[in-house]
Amino acid sequence: MITRDDAVVAATRIAGRVRRTPVVEAEPGALWLKLEFLQHSGSFKARGAFNRILASDVPAAGVITASGGNAGGAVAYAARTLGVPAEVFVPVTTPSVKVEALHRRGAVVVQHGSEYAEAYEAAAKRAADTGALFCHPYDQAEVCAGQATLGLELLEQVPDVDTVLIAVGGGGLMAGVAAALEGRARVIAVEPETCPTLHSALAAGGPVDVEVSGVAADSLGARRVGAIAYEVAVRTGVRGVLVGDDDIVAARRALWDRYRVLVEHGTAAAYAALLTSAYTPAEGERVALVLCGANTDPSRF
Amino acid sequence: MITRDDAVVAATRIAGRVRRTPVVEAEPGALWLKLEFLQHSGSFKARGAFNRILASDVPAAGVITASGGNAGGAVAYAARTLGVPAEVFVPVTTPSVKVEALHRRGAVVVQHGSEYAEAYEAAAKRAADTGALFCHPYDQAEVCAGQATLGLELLEQVPDVDTVLIAVGGGGLMAGVAAALEGRARVIAVEPETCPTLHSALAAGGPVDVEVSGVAADSLGARRVGAIAYEVAVRTGVRGVLVGDDDIVAARRALWDRYRVLVEHGTAAAYAALLTSAYTPAEGERVALVLCGANTDPSRF
Repeated sequence: MITRDDAVVAATRIAGRVRRTPVVEAEPGALWLKLEFLQHSGSFKARGAFNRILASDVPAAGVITASGGNAGGAVAYAARTLGVPAEVFVPVTTPSVKVEALHRRGAVVVQHGSEYAEAYEAAAKRAADTGALFCHPYDQAEVCAGQATLGLELLEQVPDVDTVLIAVGGGGLMAGVAAALEGRARVIAVEPETCPTLHSALAAGGPVDVEVSGVAADSLGARRVGAIAYEVAVRTGVRGVLVGDDDIVAARRALWDRYRVLVEHGTAAAYAALLTSAYTPAEGERVALVLCGANTDPSRF
Repeated sequence: MITRDDAVVAATRIAGRVRRTPVVEAEPGALWLKLEFLQHSGSFKARGAFNRILASDVPAAGVITASGGNAGGAVAYAARTLGVPAEVFVPVTTPSVKVEALHRRGAVVVQHGSEYAEAYEAAAKRAADTGALFCHPYDQAEVCAGQATLGLELLEQVPDVDTVLIAVGGGGLMAGVAAALEGRARVIAVEPETCPTLHSALAAGGPVDVEVSGVAADSLGARRVGAIAYEVAVRTGVRGVLVGDDDIVAARRALWDRYRVLVEHGTAAAYAALLTSAYTPAEGERVALVLCGANTDPSRF
């Protein structure tokens, strides 16, 4: 369980390590964009990575994670900044460009297994062997509390926000922000129809494995929502909505055409909820859209 | 001649029409990015266009400009928002994608001549015939005063800024910002070696025509710096520096790699001045970089 108090502690802990990302009032009195893709390592994950590492006694073996995506990049960035060794486990199918990016950040990269679950198991075993600090991509309290600092910032920047739209994969960001905003604003969790981890958990009464695919699977393709995320979502009344892959592609294009921000597909999913009316704000409702990552290749836009 | 007072008047006039664009503290205590590419129409030009139109009695013939680039797009956007007709003259060599973008904003597009100077002369003649309000891309007081509102915003956002880096084409933005910051911060005008309008004017003792070419010519390719820009630059002590095309390309790439902002080449020129040490801040100097436009095609990154 995490709460706003955990977010406040995390904010103090990671101050100076992460960027305070700005918001822009995109539609007067109606829509704000939280430009979190400006964060170190290109996504919000740096917040949780720093909080996890700084909250812990890091052993000589350093830190370890399993992720070929934003979480791996953030752990590698945070570890290098803090001067501790990092090992990142990824499946053998991980594109070489992502592996090279991890190398550039000084991480030891281990490619293992043909899918993420195998890399994860190998990382967990390795952590048990070496004693390295395991940094989960989303389902650890310190990770979620780190992401929650984004919610505190948003409350300072748009104090009277009614609703915050967030894309959900494993749910770490959603959990953190919902905890930070509890009693202050509602959170709408947006998922691709092809990666419905929270949606399926809410329907089943608890986290369950789902099949994942589609354009946003590289960032939202966790197979199961985190236990922390599920608990926070139920406790705070997070509402989940689904959007289609075509809508995500269109939303990503619209964010560029209207605002000149280029984000990854997973991030664009949150905007797709507005464009498709999967979520329709009431008259006068003040909506913030979290643009949480831009680890994407512009030339493939 | 324009001054900070003109900027203050313009800010009141265009309030609610333009976005207050945010800044991000990119390097703690050292570098701030002013994210002006988030502005309506994808560049700062919307500020000047709104101020020019709103400061005038617009005749039934509407407004007219000559520009296949950011100024044309901004005038078309402002005119449509304000419900007045707009004619935009462009050379026949203007890419169809830019012509179509002007059409989408409701402008009447006239293609005339093989280079910009011919389109400009045709637009001036047309304005004389119809009585339409001519909106200059950079060398009108109301246009520069509109751009100056960016400088006022920046002073509110980074009150103790020492130095502001701005790319210069015709010099309207530089003129406005230098006037707004006069006595408060220094302005460094950055130009491509291939479009040295201000540099040549400062050397010659007044605006002179120059040959223009290179990667940034689409946005910085004015052949002559504006008379207003020259006057403000001399009056306020603007310092000019030059950067090479390869440096501009590298700076554009670095802005994406480090901050996940994708801007046009002309905008990246300002950052190239830092990366190449064409301008080297002193220890403790607080520098703001104006990222003034992103009317570029991501897929050609």
